[in-house]
Amino acid sequence: MLPTIKWKKDHIVMIDQRKLPEEEVYVECRDHIQVAEAIEKMVIRGAPAIGVAAAFGVALGILKIEDDKHVEEEYSRIIQRLERTRPTARNLFWALERMRKIFEENRGLALSRLKQSIIKEAVNIEREDIETNRKIGHWGKSLLQDGDSVLTHCNTGALATAGYGTALGVIRAAFQEGKRISVYADETRPLLQGARLTCWELEKEKIPVTLITDNMAGYLMQKGMISTVVVGADRIARNGDTANKIGTYTVAVLAKEHGLPFYVAVPTQTIDVTLAEGSEIPVEERSAQEVREFGGRCVTLPRVNVENPAFDITPAAYITAIITEKGVCRPPYEKSLKELFKRKKRMKKDSV
Amino acid sequence: MLPTIKWKKDHIVMIDQRKLPEEEVYVECRDHIQVAEAIEKMVIRGAPAIGVAAAFGVALGILKIEDDKHVEEEYSRIIQRLERTRPTARNLFWALERMRKIFEENRGLALSRLKQSIIKEAVNIEREDIETNRKIGHWGKSLLQDGDSVLTHCNTGALATAGYGTALGVIRAAFQEGKRISVYADETRPLLQGARLTCWELEKEKIPVTLITDNMAGYLMQKGMISTVVVGADRIARNGDTANKIGTYTVAVLAKEHGLPFYVAVPTQTIDVTLAEGSEIPVEERSAQEVREFGGRCVTLPRVNVENPAFDITPAAYITAIITEKGVCRPPYEKSLKELFKRKKRMKKDSV
Repeated sequence: MLPTIKWKKDHIVMIDQRKLPEEEVYVECRDHIQVAEAIEKMVIRGAPAIGVAAAFGVALGILKIEDDKHVEEEYSRIIQRLERTRPTARNLFWALERMRKIFEENRGLALSRLKQSIIKEAVNIEREDIETNRKIGHWGKSLLQDGDSVLTHCNTGALATAGYGTALGVIRAAFQEGKRISVYADETRPLLQGARLTCWELEKEKIPVTLITDNMAGYLMQKGMISTVVVGADRIARNGDTANKIGTYTVAVLAKEHGLPFYVAVPTQTIDVTLAEGSEIPVEERSAQEVREFGGRCVTLPRVNVENPAFDITPAAYITAIITEKGVCRPPYEKSLKELFKRKKRMKKDSV
Repeated sequence: MLPTIKWKKDHIVMIDQRKLPEEEVYVECRDHIQVAEAIEKMVIRGAPAIGVAAAFGVALGILKIEDDKHVEEEYSRIIQRLERTRPTARNLFWALERMRKIFEENRGLALSRLKQSIIKEAVNIEREDIETNRKIGHWGKSLLQDGDSVLTHCNTGALATAGYGTALGVIRAAFQEGKRISVYADETRPLLQGARLTCWELEKEKIPVTLITDNMAGYLMQKGMISTVVVGADRIARNGDTANKIGTYTVAVLAKEHGLPFYVAVPTQTIDVTLAEGSEIPVEERSAQEVREFGGRCVTLPRVNVENPAFDITPAAYITAIITEKGVCRPPYEKSLKELFKRKKRMKKDSV
């Protein structure tokens, strides 16, 4: 398992994902501001990993509070700072809501006990994430067949989560039960998470991987070289519309055109029940420099006009199934996602 | 007009397109081997420009022949070397066929006179190319409306031709007659001709341009930000199936999905009447390093497996119209392209 992020009593350590695969450098964060900046600069990225990092950020934040007079206001400010880091991934807000709730539940405790409960919740979020990913893999692996050639976009592996991965977790689980799976990895411009992170992870796992530029997937599908698509997501609306890394929608259109299944693998925390449809999901626009540069070097005119949406929205109609830790949802998602949350509550009582 | 390639009595000069826009460096070629290598290494690229370069290469080759004993064999070897440079662009073979024909027609002349006729033909090919592009622009500009937001892929401008451009020529012509046209330029991985060359050309012409990564076009179409697509081509089969820079097929699928017109702008020399359909067009596979690296820097694992087809095939069914110097062809192309060649012969007699 790759060490994406680890809690170390009074600080956290995360691998600097901007520098992979060239260098394996670890970054320490000692307060919530450093964590917020690490999320903004994409030292750590991937919706579930952002959620875990934010929870740890809150824990580091409360550790610094020494006077218990204004704990509530200070705690709120910590959470607000972390909320402002990136707007699209639901997991960030989901984790911060849990951290807010645990505070509410324990506000009567002495400060040192309160700190302990906050830290425990953050560590729980990390542990649960790995467990959740394994369950996503369990449900998803039956959708992949022996001999499948799977296209994936961006990075959805151990690095995008606390460990194991969502879409890559499905691929990993199918591979581990002996299915011969090979992967095409979109390089995923502008930040090249596919080229840099997905290839690195798959090679470590000895899962066969072929790197392509984002504009090659259509041609490979036309030639029959891709049989299935599996991607992750940053936020899913009630109707199944899915925000994921820019380029996902194009892959979904191509999959439809070639009659290929298009699967989305996510923890249920990614589903935003407050949003009716994808048009309500905020899409982050990032710095123009990310597009103007390639591997840190300017490849165009230094001031050329640029669009840089970090995500796009894939309408539910393009999605064959949504794989979660609670099972596989099929269209219509309005209904199947709702049932998932009912099931979740029931399962809590009955145990899984 | 940009100086893509120029004949200079005993050598040619071309701008090194690999170094743009960072540096404007000019390269001299003094024999056909140097020209062949410049084409292979993509110092010069773009189907019509490759044709012009190859014709000049033949001219440089025959200039070196001093003994008239084995002129025919040597001339054949020169042409064969240039034919081996790149397999997909029809224009290369079209230009070399013209150079072969002019030799046949003048083989009875003394060597010095023969050399003159060969040089003249190469210069004619260059001059005709600019004229042809202007005519493509003339026919194509009426397809663009005031206020259009045009997506283009790769570079099809002055740099891809002897001057003016094919798809960019259409955009230029519409802009010059006062239509408010803005352009989205796909960066066009792996070699970034869109980011490096198209943005550079459009900025020089003061045509508004916005650079995007290849995986953003779908999202912009979904948001209604693109109204039309115009691309060039490297080879077109009799039925209209079109080989062009990798990623073109994906753009065509996206255009169809969003109900947008998808135009291909080419000189008729790009049409290969010997091929019934696109599956017969040879697609060049280039070095894996182009995908693994940029600017000499590896952005992934150094030995990761890679696919690198330089072109893809867009089936005729996705193409709204093919714009040529002889007029605009509409489906069914089997019929309209055939009529084009009849018209060509008639026009030669009647004058245009």
